[in-house]
Amino acid sequence: MPRVADKQERREQVIEAAFRVICRDGISGTSMRGVAKEAGCTIGLINHWFTSRDDLIEATFDRAIEMEMERAEAIVSDPASYIEAASQFLPVDARRRDDARIWIAFYAMVICDTDNVARRTARCSAVRRVMVAGLREFAPLAVCHDIVDRIFVLVDGIAINALLDPKRWTRNRQRTVLREGLEDVLSRHAKEYQP
Amino acid sequence: MPRVADKQERREQVIEAAFRVICRDGISGTSMRGVAKEAGCTIGLINHWFTSRDDLIEATFDRAIEMEMERAEAIVSDPASYIEAASQFLPVDARRRDDARIWIAFYAMVICDTDNVARRTARCSAVRRVMVAGLREFAPLAVCHDIVDRIFVLVDGIAINALLDPKRWTRNRQRTVLREGLEDVLSRHAKEYQP
Repeated sequence: MPRVADKQERREQVIEAAFRVICRDGISGTSMRGVAKEAGCTIGLINHWFTSRDDLIEATFDRAIEMEMERAEAIVSDPASYIEAASQFLPVDARRRDDARIWIAFYAMVICDTDNVARRTARCSAVRRVMVAGLREFAPLAVCHDIVDRIFVLVDGIAINALLDPKRWTRNRQRTVLREGLEDVLSRHAKEYQP
Repeated sequence: MPRVADKQERREQVIEAAFRVICRDGISGTSMRGVAKEAGCTIGLINHWFTSRDDLIEATFDRAIEMEMERAEAIVSDPASYIEAASQFLPVDARRRDDARIWIAFYAMVICDTDNVARRTARCSAVRRVMVAGLREFAPLAVCHDIVDRIFVLVDGIAINALLDPKRWTRNRQRTVLREGLEDVLSRHAKEYQP
């Protein structure tokens, strides 16, 4: 007999299943039924933690934010290696392509959902705060924000282009454009940024 | 009595209505009924040109590509002024915010729709061809592609960030990050790029 999975673990499995379904079918194609099928459980079991489809999608979005926060902390814990760390956000392999698909799907949802945009923005800017705090000892505040702006633009812009045109945007191409873009913004601020 | 609008003009009005509905409600929230209401006509009239919701969304996407092509041609017709021209793609005012919302919604749809991704990619890379052709007389081919890559990354990355966090990404902020990013890639290729 399989052991009885503990509750928290089951909840995680449901969120992971929701991730996979959103990657495959988009947010509009994601139903409680589809997630239950993917997770190999009943809708009743999912309803135990998530009272509605919106609740479940919200929780999946929270998880995406948590993952982004962990990566942001990795970037700033060692600025000298943050080109390597930032490339963890790029869709350079199958796993990260799925992560990036989730992000684009959420962006599209948030951007069209004017009621929630402020709340979501507040959550996303937590990632900015972590990164600015990590850079703060090396540069004035405005320069830290400039660098974070450019990292956000590079990562989001490369991710979208790589998903749309995977033939051109090989793993190497993605990393080269990221590295050159970061080198450029750092050399632009060479006088103020002193790691 | 109002004059009888000519057929082509009516079709345009339906596509424009579809644009507005997608901006407001996202692709998943866009129905034939909703577009008919927005356009002030019947579903029957829309069916005259578009046999299904997918047909209508496809036609709206085609229109977005056409608009992007026009802007791409404007950029390359005068490389000296293309920082100004590229900023036409950014969500710096209400009209362009709507355009950018449409793009993000389409990107999300295309990225999750693995059946269509190759066809869509082919269409989008027409924009790249126009831009590379325009730059070709000033630089070797590989450098042209490098510059176009960076323009795509900057425009898509800035647009997404500006829609998610409009308070930080003012019109000036968007233009500054675009200008600095383009200056950086051109100075990186200063030896090979001779306008």
